[in-house]
Amino acid sequence: MRFTTYLRAGQTRLGLVHGDQVIDLNDAQPQVPADLRAALAAGTDLAAAAQAALTSDAPRLSLARLTLAPLVPEPGKVICLGLNYFDHAREGGRDKPDYPWLFFRGKSSLIGHGAAGVLPRVSEKFDYEAELALVIGRDVPRHVRQADALDHVFGYTCFNDMSVRDYQKRTPQWTIGKNFDATGGFGPVLVTADELAPGATGLRIRSRLNGQVMQDASTTDMIWSVAETIALLSDCMTLEAGDVIVMGTPAGVGQARTPPVWMKAGDTIEIEIERIGTLVNPIVQEA
Amino acid sequence: MRFTTYLRAGQTRLGLVHGDQVIDLNDAQPQVPADLRAALAAGTDLAAAAQAALTSDAPRLSLARLTLAPLVPEPGKVICLGLNYFDHAREGGRDKPDYPWLFFRGKSSLIGHGAAGVLPRVSEKFDYEAELALVIGRDVPRHVRQADALDHVFGYTCFNDMSVRDYQKRTPQWTIGKNFDATGGFGPVLVTADELAPGATGLRIRSRLNGQVMQDASTTDMIWSVAETIALLSDCMTLEAGDVIVMGTPAGVGQARTPPVWMKAGDTIEIEIERIGTLVNPIVQEA
Repeated sequence: MRFTTYLRAGQTRLGLVHGDQVIDLNDAQPQVPADLRAALAAGTDLAAAAQAALTSDAPRLSLARLTLAPLVPEPGKVICLGLNYFDHAREGGRDKPDYPWLFFRGKSSLIGHGAAGVLPRVSEKFDYEAELALVIGRDVPRHVRQADALDHVFGYTCFNDMSVRDYQKRTPQWTIGKNFDATGGFGPVLVTADELAPGATGLRIRSRLNGQVMQDASTTDMIWSVAETIALLSDCMTLEAGDVIVMGTPAGVGQARTPPVWMKAGDTIEIEIERIGTLVNPIVQEA
Repeated sequence: MRFTTYLRAGQTRLGLVHGDQVIDLNDAQPQVPADLRAALAAGTDLAAAAQAALTSDAPRLSLARLTLAPLVPEPGKVICLGLNYFDHAREGGRDKPDYPWLFFRGKSSLIGHGAAGVLPRVSEKFDYEAELALVIGRDVPRHVRQADALDHVFGYTCFNDMSVRDYQKRTPQWTIGKNFDATGGFGPVLVTADELAPGATGLRIRSRLNGQVMQDASTTDMIWSVAETIALLSDCMTLEAGDVIVMGTPAGVGQARTPPVWMKAGDTIEIEIERIGTLVNPIVQEA
């Protein structure tokens, strides 16, 4: 199954994607919350809801015509990994780390597919990062075993962890450079875990800047797999339904190029993950 | 005015504190959201609501008997500053930084006054940090001037930024060591900004471990003031109503002592800020 989150009259709505059409789940079944996190937290059987929606007479909307929003508009946590591909760690002059570098994003940084990524007024060093993201489907017990970790993944989507590199490096804490408004592309659709290989391995992941391929790798090359990451995080904290984990980026980012490549107003950045979809965001200058 | 957030039948509720009594604002006035962030985001006039509550016949509850919750149970962002007191930067062997070290906390790390701080199973290096926290009252325009920044502060409270030091230092990113479950004490009451000096300067801030004073400083000694911090963050992101900023800790933390002092099960840690209150949390071992 595939889901998306779109805007209707200023409110975010949860939609089932069926081909190039979308059925609003809450329209089809009023007991289904209109928000993915709320639906997951309530333990909604979204597979059953999807089946019922397909046989309902709820309107079919054109996916291409909807204004999409971040897949989880208000996540409890967005946990991001740095340096999770060997080749990207190397291009930054680093060895394989012993533990993932972790930082959080706040919801004010998130945008949906099609929305503009905003080049900040205070920086010109605006970079892209193609990443696989996952949404937790139900609360993960603390100290979960790796063998059980994937049971808690609802599905996968694309993420563009756009980074303001000079702010990221102003101190050793990367957080500020990862939390500018409108820098976290998140979508366009979530593909449920059952439609992909366990841990979403084996998927080609690419970024394209104005059509030119900048990153091209496989999710198999992640240093910490999805299962390992969930197990490791569960030693520390409760991963809750609707939490998001963003799995790090492969080599080819703009800052590691000679000369460096920075995104500028008028650019278009795309993140494509095989079998999931393509996240497209134009870049605009902050007003 | 003073506000608190407490638990009733498993739900968090917003209360007006009047002496040693609490009036549930939503009971007194059903149009007032039962959550501080929701009330602020809706633009509720909480001063008027408080006045109306005081003249209502809503029940008076005993503050001492309530089970308190984190003051903002589900903040959009909890932005924490590291190294914001000269003496604490020095005790860690660091000079005055050029820019604040920033990291985020997720809501799963937050606890209220009286709730147990949890010493994790995977670490023995569990430290306290006395901090001033503020709650944003209304959205802050991007690039706000320092002179206008304090207009957006609703009020101040105490925070205990309990830190799992070995995880904090496993990589250069502190985030993981600051996000273990039940490590962010947040309360007990919020004092509105009008009752304190601008930026909450001039307040004695102390931590006591089992009654012994461990940190003793003044909020005047913060490197980045509240107004500077808000202005600086607004260059990067939108600070939204209900967002929380945690202003860093002074010298005297456990890890900087010889020998180091770590919190253990059975301990009681208190954070007292003059004119605001005292946040008390017992320490228990993770099950």
